[in-house]
Amino acid sequence: MFAVTILGNNSAVPAFNRHPTSQVVTYEGTNFLVDCGEGTQIQMINYKIRRGKISHIFISHLHGDHYFGLIGLINSFGLLSHKQDLHIFGPPALKEIIEIQLKMAETHLPYALHIHAITGPGLLVETDKMRIECFRTNHRIECFGFKFTEKRAARKILADKAREMQVPLAFFDHLKTGADYHRKDGFLVKNEEVTLPGEKGRSYAFCADTKYDETLLEHISGLDMIYHETTYLDNFRERAEARFHSTTRQAATMALKAGVKRLLIGHFSSKYDTLEEFEKEAREVFPNTDLALEGTVYTIH
Amino acid sequence: MFAVTILGNNSAVPAFNRHPTSQVVTYEGTNFLVDCGEGTQIQMINYKIRRGKISHIFISHLHGDHYFGLIGLINSFGLLSHKQDLHIFGPPALKEIIEIQLKMAETHLPYALHIHAITGPGLLVETDKMRIECFRTNHRIECFGFKFTEKRAARKILADKAREMQVPLAFFDHLKTGADYHRKDGFLVKNEEVTLPGEKGRSYAFCADTKYDETLLEHISGLDMIYHETTYLDNFRERAEARFHSTTRQAATMALKAGVKRLLIGHFSSKYDTLEEFEKEAREVFPNTDLALEGTVYTIH
Repeated sequence: MFAVTILGNNSAVPAFNRHPTSQVVTYEGTNFLVDCGEGTQIQMINYKIRRGKISHIFISHLHGDHYFGLIGLINSFGLLSHKQDLHIFGPPALKEIIEIQLKMAETHLPYALHIHAITGPGLLVETDKMRIECFRTNHRIECFGFKFTEKRAARKILADKAREMQVPLAFFDHLKTGADYHRKDGFLVKNEEVTLPGEKGRSYAFCADTKYDETLLEHISGLDMIYHETTYLDNFRERAEARFHSTTRQAATMALKAGVKRLLIGHFSSKYDTLEEFEKEAREVFPNTDLALEGTVYTIH
Repeated sequence: MFAVTILGNNSAVPAFNRHPTSQVVTYEGTNFLVDCGEGTQIQMINYKIRRGKISHIFISHLHGDHYFGLIGLINSFGLLSHKQDLHIFGPPALKEIIEIQLKMAETHLPYALHIHAITGPGLLVETDKMRIECFRTNHRIECFGFKFTEKRAARKILADKAREMQVPLAFFDHLKTGADYHRKDGFLVKNEEVTLPGEKGRSYAFCADTKYDETLLEHISGLDMIYHETTYLDNFRERAEARFHSTTRQAATMALKAGVKRLLIGHFSSKYDTLEEFEKEAREVFPNTDLALEGTVYTIH
């Protein structure tokens, strides 16, 4: 399973039972947490997210509605006897902010906490099945989005053809990764002669807080799903611009230009008590849009 | 009105829909916030506490379950265009913890934020009607309790007697404060001859986190109401001692020895899913005990 569960979909101040930004990206039993607004640990309890399965946390930027819940989560992991290493990726100052609070409480965590500074765009984490990269968005302070890309599946071996060309069984695993085979007789068996490409991996990007900025397109084009903020409805385009945020139509235009398959919208301003208009306006531009609703799981196909 | 509203009654990790420590002491339209665990601002919304009425916040110590919600509250006050000065009293390191977070977000608050370091016991705030003092408790890290004392009401004037002794009306306000009157003919009218004592002011103390320690008695004796923590039931007395916390019977014994009128108990460990036993055990020692329940208002008589 590759899916996103929304824990908080509101901006700035909690309102109308909506919480500040946080979401969990689940991939085959591992939970990656993206942003961690105040109360995220309580939302995890509410929505039965297994905290023990979280090994990585990504913080987009240091506005409080995106990370004020992090210190509480780190602390609770300690009290709950979490053992697994915890890796946090975020702005350079995050390490100092967390460490001073742990120090003043004389907290000794029972697990290894690694706080990694994000200093520019690039690869953050690579596992055998997934790559997680960050890219700059356009916000009032430095801010990064995160892209989760499932690696292309292994190449499919045309077994009859491979045997015919005298590739030994022991080399089949290498064929899956794209390797050519050098026969003892000097003949070169090219990989593409005996395999077919694997399926393309699925992909998701969290575009964090940002004003409308087409430089994001190079990072999100063609993805299966993106989350893009829509702090305001489209009649507040000027305020959005001034505050480095986006509107419904801007997010939907970004999804359309990027040619993604599906758009999630969130980070709603506390001035709105209902969200129907957000869905309506975005869908007029990009029909396959959904509201990021708290407690809801969105699967990436 | 002089009352306490509980916003969070749990210790350490949120559990069973109980939240970390926070309570509001309301005195004639002013709200004093005592401790501010994660999610306090959301609890304020849930229980309709008027955030704009909060002018002072007191933080007992730097364990996270007592202050991780403070930065979010400060930030939200800014976003909600709070104008009134906000005074925060807490451990010396609190100022650095708050300021680094405001700085990294490039936050400019629209109100004056004063963070006062508590460096020892004594008077923190005095208004014309109330004194707020702090006193040391016995916890793993430095920790203070807070005592709210309504000043003794003005002395009552025996008007006939005062006129008979030729005290002019213009001096009656001075009589209320206890002053003697010097007549022009050289005669001294002693205050107690023409007034009666005012009523004793009401009082409340929040005893913060603490192990059982009778040195607290000098600060809480004879008060109308105290809050004392009961992290554990009495069969966990050893664990309570080791972790610098108290049990039900210890809190109730403290109330009994202090001769207070009423005891509130809270800071329940996350290991307990129900609280009936806490009430039962404490009442066996001190009958006028109540559980500090979230959203409930306890009036000080």
